[in-house]
Order: sequence, then structure tokens, then C-alpha cells
Amino acid sequence: MSGFVSLVGAGPGDPELLTVKAARRLAEADLVLYDALTSEEVLDLAPTARCVSVGKRAGRPSIAQETIHGLMIRAARRGQRVVRLKSGDPFVLGRGGEEALALAAAGVAFEVVPGLTTAVSAPGLSGIPVTHRGVASGFAVVSGHADSACRPILDALPPGSATLVILMGIARRKALSDLLITRGWSRATPAAVCRAAGTAHAHTWIGTLDALSAAPGDTDGDDAPGTIVVGDVVSIGASIVAALFPRPAAPAASRVD
Amino acid sequence: MSGFVSLVGAGPGDPELLTVKAARRLAEADLVLYDALTSEEVLDLAPTARCVSVGKRAGRPSIAQETIHGLMIRAARRGQRVVRLKSGDPFVLGRGGEEALALAAAGVAFEVVPGLTTAVSAPGLSGIPVTHRGVASGFAVVSGHADSACRPILDALPPGSATLVILMGIARRKALSDLLITRGWSRATPAAVCRAAGTAHAHTWIGTLDALSAAPGDTDGDDAPGTIVVGDVVSIGASIVAALFPRPAAPAASRVD
Repeated sequence: MSGFVSLVGAGPGDPELLTVKAARRLAEADLVLYDALTSEEVLDLAPTARCVSVGKRAGRPSIAQETIHGLMIRAARRGQRVVRLKSGDPFVLGRGGEEALALAAAGVAFEVVPGLTTAVSAPGLSGIPVTHRGVASGFAVVSGHADSACRPILDALPPGSATLVILMGIARRKALSDLLITRGWSRATPAAVCRAAGTAHAHTWIGTLDALSAAPGDTDGDDAPGTIVVGDVVSIGASIVAALFPRPAAPAASRVD
Repeated sequence: MSGFVSLVGAGPGDPELLTVKAARRLAEADLVLYDALTSEEVLDLAPTARCVSVGKRAGRPSIAQETIHGLMIRAARRGQRVVRLKSGDPFVLGRGGEEALALAAAGVAFEVVPGLTTAVSAPGLSGIPVTHRGVASGFAVVSGHADSACRPILDALPPGSATLVILMGIARRKALSDLLITRGWSRATPAAVCRAAGTAHAHTWIGTLDALSAAPGDTDGDDAPGTIVVGDVVSIGASIVAALFPRPAAPAASRVD
């Protein structure tokens, strides 16, 4: 009797935005190990599983990565169907690679079930295309949570050459906009902050790089969920956003500042 | 009576990798306008819809973008539920932004249903994480189909600073690897080509930037489906790939060279 681990991406938050395969893995799971940002509605898809939070948020006591590996491996060896449920895509800034390596090293059978990465789906749900013909034929995704993580790309990317998507950067949005302006990006470059996309609390702020520091944020730490988009695609998106979320907003629909 | 258009991402090809919402929209659709790379299995999810191919492939006669806009708008105005089904994510190199703008301009109600972008899901399904702690904290996605589309990013990105994901670049893989080597990327930089990820024909080639031009490709044009990944994450991925797809490959499973 051998178990199996599925490294599953949960997407941006809406249970309807899990893949069909992810939903099926949850329905069949014995054990679900989930992250801090996972919604109750998503966990409801796993009615027969034991659901264990292994979430980590910056600045708070957290479960060691090795502990998560051990939980997955031991459960699989007991014959359980394990879902390691990760926000967004398991392989985008989520340490999914480390978990896959640990499973491979332990000889545990596993699979990867990709999820909608917030880097693309949060702007998309907000109405902002990360690429657009004649405006941006590529995009760069970086983690904004620390200077060391984003400087190699932010220092080098020529202003305006690609759409820039910054994950985990809300708390550092002033430092990030200052850096880009220092690097030659125009203060007037369109910028957006997509918060809680794909949930009932979705909110999109649209402005300029110069005003990014004044965009709404919250104060609960580095990893406040939200996606920063910088580039001319934000202007393209503005009229799509207006069509998707007309003012006055419908009840519980997304608001746009 | 007013219709509605859903701009839906179909993901990498496997019908199980559509989102729950995408599958529901297909099940309820009256009209599906689909791209060249859409599989029969995905169209089977829309049993009551009229399914019309509006696919474009480089170098072949194609339906004008404006014709697609007109089909969507007229059907919606006749009260139909229209699904505009696009490979991957609608807003990644797929002209989804133009279609959203056309719908907004026409006053037709629409929504965006993101899909798994091939840029992340093809490497992921192959076992290659686009980010990995200590190896790459970001990634850049470019279209490789033309020099003008990718040069602004490829010229600027410091060698090894981020994972590089090149879509629609299989046919130009020699020119692309030559360019990167000229720009200072080491010839030994790990590289991969993920073909047909998420389908029964999935195949992953792993080698180096220097050998990329010799990776298997096909000759049917610029847009041969396949994703090129360049960077040290490919080395991380190699042991994950080996665990996911052990040799000898199971029948109909992915092969790894």
C-alpha cells in the first residue's frame, strides 16, 4: 500500500478557479496541507480529508519547511493520498521545488498539478493583460519582499521594455517605486495594485509609478496578498477594468479606485 | 435578452487542467470560438455549443482579428452565451486584451476566466520550477517568434539573473541561443524544451544553452507549441523530472531525453 502526494496550485483564491484536476484531488484526499492564504471555500472541496494548516507568513512563527516535508512523506508512506495545497502555482515563489526534491529524495510518488499563478491571474481578473500587441510582448515576475530577491532583475530591466509584475511587494511598494524611478522608469508609468483578485474582496487600484507608494496597502507584513503591475499595459487595462467593474460597483463586486 | 462573452483560458491542453469555471462556461455555452491548439477533448466539454475554429498559425491563411471580434459581438447581441477559448491564458501573448477592448467598446458584457499559462505550467508539468529559493527569485517570459518581440528583454537581462521562459520560440531556438551566448550567458547554462506538456504527447528535452539548437523541434512554423526554459532551475528540475518520469517511461507517459 503506497500513498501519493499531489503538489497542487490553488490559484488566486476563488474555488472555481482551481483546475478540474485540483478539485478532484481535493475531493479524494486523505490529508490536505494548506497555506495561510487558502480560503475556507477551497478547503470545503476536501470534505473527507484531514486539513492541516502549514501556513507561513513573514514575521510570524512558522512551521519549518523540513516539517512540511516530513508530514507529506510520512503520510504517503502510511498509504494516504496527500494534497499539498499551495496558493497560486506551486512552482512560483512557493518553495514547491524544494518539496518536490524532498519527495523525490524520499522515493515517494508524487505529481505536480499547476495552478493559476497570481502573477498573471490577478491582473487578468482585474482586466489588465500582462502582454498586449504593440505595448508589451513579454513580462517579468519578481518577488518584491526583499531587495536581494528583486534587484538583479529590477536593476537591469530597461524602463518600459516589459510589463513588470511584483509579487509580495505591497509592504515595500514605496521602496520599489523609488528604485524603478531611480533606474529611469518614468514617474508617469502606469501602475496597478490588484488586491484579493478572484475573491469577494477584490480591489484594483490604478495610478502611476509615482503614486504607487500611496496605493492602499495594509500593515500586516511583507506578504500582504496583492500584485503590483507596472507598465503601459495598465493603461490598456484601464478601459477593460472599467467595462468589467462599472461604477457604481455591484454589491460584493470588485471596486476600482 | 442579452448575451455574454467569456474570454476563457484553456490552459496547456489537458481538459483536466481547465479551471472549474472554464469547464462550466463550456458546458453552458451556445457558441465556442476556439484556437488552433485546442484539443478535441476540451471541445467535448461543450456538448451543446456550436464550435467554430478561429485559429491562427504563423504563415498560414488566418481569420482576421476583427472577424473574431465581430463573431463574438454579433452572437452576444443575439443573446448567446459565447466562450472565446484561448490556449493558455487569454492575456499572455494571445491578443485577449484586444478582444476585451473590442467587447468593451461594443458595450457587450464579458468576463475574463484566466487559464494556466504555458509559460509556467509547461515547465511545471515537466518538473521544472520557474523559481527556486537561492537559484532564481524571478522569471521573465518573452515571445521568441520575432527578434523585435524579444530583444528588448533578452538584450537587457543579465545572464543568469532570472529564469528565462521563451514561448513561441522553438523554430528560432538557434538564433535565440546564439543571441543569449553573445549577450554573455554561459554556453553551459541549463536549458530545457517542454513540448506538448499536459498532453499524452508530452516530451521534455534537457540540455544546455549551447545544445539548444539541437533540441528536437518540428518544422511546421514559428508557432510550434513548445516552451523553452533557460536557467539554473533546469538543473533543479532535472532530478524532479527524473522522479516524475522514470525511465523506461510508462506507456503514453512523458519521455525525457
